[in-house]
Amino acid sequence: MNYENLTSADLDFLISVVGKEYVSTRDADLDQHSKDESFHQAVRPSVVVWTQSAAEISAVLKYANDHHIPVTPWGAGTSLEGNPIPIFGGIVLDTSRMDKVIQLRADDFQIDVQPGLRYKEMNATLAKQGLFFPPDPGANASIGGMIANNAAGTRTLRYGTTKDNVLRLEVVLPSGEIIRTGTRAKKTSSGFDLVHLFIGSEGTLGIITEATLRLSPLPEKFSAAITSFSTTEAATQVVTNIIGSGIVPAALEFLDTATVRAISATGEFALGENPTLLMEFHSATDVALKEELNQVEIMCRDGGCLNFEAGLGRDERDRLWRARHRAYDILVRSRPGVAYLIVDVAVPISEYSRLVSAAQAALAEQGLQGYLVGHAGDGNLHPLVPYTPGDTASYTTAWAADEKIVEAAIAMGGTATGEHGVGIGKRRFMPLEHGASLNAMRAIKATFDPNGILNPGKIFESD
Amino acid sequence: MNYENLTSADLDFLISVVGKEYVSTRDADLDQHSKDESFHQAVRPSVVVWTQSAAEISAVLKYANDHHIPVTPWGAGTSLEGNPIPIFGGIVLDTSRMDKVIQLRADDFQIDVQPGLRYKEMNATLAKQGLFFPPDPGANASIGGMIANNAAGTRTLRYGTTKDNVLRLEVVLPSGEIIRTGTRAKKTSSGFDLVHLFIGSEGTLGIITEATLRLSPLPEKFSAAITSFSTTEAATQVVTNIIGSGIVPAALEFLDTATVRAISATGEFALGENPTLLMEFHSATDVALKEELNQVEIMCRDGGCLNFEAGLGRDERDRLWRARHRAYDILVRSRPGVAYLIVDVAVPISEYSRLVSAAQAALAEQGLQGYLVGHAGDGNLHPLVPYTPGDTASYTTAWAADEKIVEAAIAMGGTATGEHGVGIGKRRFMPLEHGASLNAMRAIKATFDPNGILNPGKIFESD
Repeated sequence: MNYENLTSADLDFLISVVGKEYVSTRDADLDQHSKDESFHQAVRPSVVVWTQSAAEISAVLKYANDHHIPVTPWGAGTSLEGNPIPIFGGIVLDTSRMDKVIQLRADDFQIDVQPGLRYKEMNATLAKQGLFFPPDPGANASIGGMIANNAAGTRTLRYGTTKDNVLRLEVVLPSGEIIRTGTRAKKTSSGFDLVHLFIGSEGTLGIITEATLRLSPLPEKFSAAITSFSTTEAATQVVTNIIGSGIVPAALEFLDTATVRAISATGEFALGENPTLLMEFHSATDVALKEELNQVEIMCRDGGCLNFEAGLGRDERDRLWRARHRAYDILVRSRPGVAYLIVDVAVPISEYSRLVSAAQAALAEQGLQGYLVGHAGDGNLHPLVPYTPGDTASYTTAWAADEKIVEAAIAMGGTATGEHGVGIGKRRFMPLEHGASLNAMRAIKATFDPNGILNPGKIFESD
Repeated sequence: MNYENLTSADLDFLISVVGKEYVSTRDADLDQHSKDESFHQAVRPSVVVWTQSAAEISAVLKYANDHHIPVTPWGAGTSLEGNPIPIFGGIVLDTSRMDKVIQLRADDFQIDVQPGLRYKEMNATLAKQGLFFPPDPGANASIGGMIANNAAGTRTLRYGTTKDNVLRLEVVLPSGEIIRTGTRAKKTSSGFDLVHLFIGSEGTLGIITEATLRLSPLPEKFSAAITSFSTTEAATQVVTNIIGSGIVPAALEFLDTATVRAISATGEFALGENPTLLMEFHSATDVALKEELNQVEIMCRDGGCLNFEAGLGRDERDRLWRARHRAYDILVRSRPGVAYLIVDVAVPISEYSRLVSAAQAALAEQGLQGYLVGHAGDGNLHPLVPYTPGDTASYTTAWAADEKIVEAAIAMGGTATGEHGVGIGKRRFMPLEHGASLNAMRAIKATFDPNGILNPGKIFESD
């Protein structure tokens, strides 16, 4: 694709749509929108535009489409694969002013929101009604960004990913047309599933301007358990056994030996030095919770666990999970000057321990001391690959490890990305993972965005 | 679209692909493939072809695409909206010979199957491994048909629809290209979600030749409860309260007064004559089950239930559910010569009692004595609208009631079809439900199937 450079006439048009104070070419604003939280290289847009309605976005897109100007939507900039970096310059369309709750319908367990709303703020409000939106990417992402990336986190096992919790979308297409798709009903078989097509499309097909989310009752009863095993295989087998028993943990996390060793070294936690599982359970009743925990302990002991510590209630859950929540900070603090490329792959559960071995081998091959954490219940692994910011050679080494890990995951029937999206970092694996179906994806892209103006250079290697 | 009539050269080609014994123009075969289980008019194809592999389907589609011959895929013929009726004639492509389990991977809770396999046969085999595929359309549908229609049934509340339980597909496109899309990993954010695009596309975008299904552990502990209320509003409020409590019933069914009256009239069941809810619960432990049932009873009594009968265990569950399972047969037997148009609409739960009133009013307006049953937990209602087979006037009356009910559901933010698909019967509501997003669906159809050969005349009113 060939894109045009922005002219002063273009800037005048943008000002006429959103107002002078919401169009910026200031260095600070361009810098702030040049980079997400990933290790990918910053690229500045020509201009940042803060829209406040679907109508404004429609006007901007129609103009950009007519003039072949790239438009990259921007939520909170918390993504981890360079998803919103405007690598072809042009317009960054920031949705942070569109951060309103449009309507909460508690009786239907639904909320209509604008895309710029941050999910942590939304959940704080919803908590007063005993409700929450379960997908939890960790960083305080915007709802629009979560939908664009199909974000997920530790609670996927019980509550699903973003994909499983969105019912309806309003989307502006590159033509400027505003469409609404999906239904407020909990299920539908009415026509093609455009909602799921837009979820995870990373702003390459349209810009989300409103979403109806599916909410869950906030759990009132919590329990948690932490247990370790002499091998990853033994830990993984217990994961399979727990899921096979019909018990549905809210979360089931894995930490490898290197990670628990680093955490234990702080002296704040005594986790031992073995592959460790951390679990959380939600239930409507205390009795059910106790009985579940009981069964889980039996399965862990039958599976040869070296230790098993459990607790009932929110405080106990928080205490046992503190190590997991602090893990990333501890790993960063423990090695000053080192940053981590957070790899994101997922495989069928039966392949999880093989994936762990492959990741450890890939790190060792590059002479790197990395760490492995992951959502074991989903088969999702996040190897943390160290690199030194500013040192080009260390990027190359980290990328080499990343490549080996991703190729191993795909070879095991898995995916190049479980929850962070393709962005820039995973584009090169798309032919390997998708084969001929990548052509079908490209055909859809060409149908929705024939001029390739929306978030160009993402998902597909060359536009 | 203009389609070509089949020539003897075309038949010769089909015979060269699948063999003489698997190409038929016999009256009995054409008749058998002219009609599903709906009230829609039968239309014969020109020929029925039984394929046995993706390669054969690829050859047939490529030829049909080049020669502009309609191809309608056929699973088990159990659908309820005319979805596989070959209304433009041409080829019916029957997948019933492709009924093999390719691979069961019990540790991953996954199975790879061919599309012609019937789900009841598959679940009978899986039961020996303590596993099952939860979506349950009732009729013994083929897996390919379930995927094409995004089929669902009574267990959606806990286990989701077909859409929530398919990980990977192999699909033959009209060009003859065979693609594989999706992953064996439980979650992915890798590129556009083609899996969900094909699910529910009713064979209009491609023909499914293999699927990886997500399985669940077969529940071992069952309980059930039956309870009635003086009004539908009261019953619906209890549904909301139960879901809001965090308890997740496996099923939560609604039967209106007319239905329970007809069932009670048989003398086999004493259900009373009030709006009734029937529930089922699955749990990993007996203790949890008892505690849940206890809480549910409290919520029903607080909600003003007139009676509450519950039971623990599989036998009790079967006893309490027998009335629901026998309902359709009882309604058919009680009025000889009368058949039922089974309407399929879904709304947000808060609108459920208004939907019930609207359906009762629509029936009354046409002077019809109908019955309402539904999956209340999903907001899905199935009004049974009586008509007399062969009597054209009675079809017109039934359609008029159907139209009123569907329009009411859409006006309430709901959908024209919760689980039966669009087929022929719901095409005329697509503009009302989808508005401008219907154009996006048409654009996708044109991209995948530019000659409109795949199941023409379905989903969209005119091709």
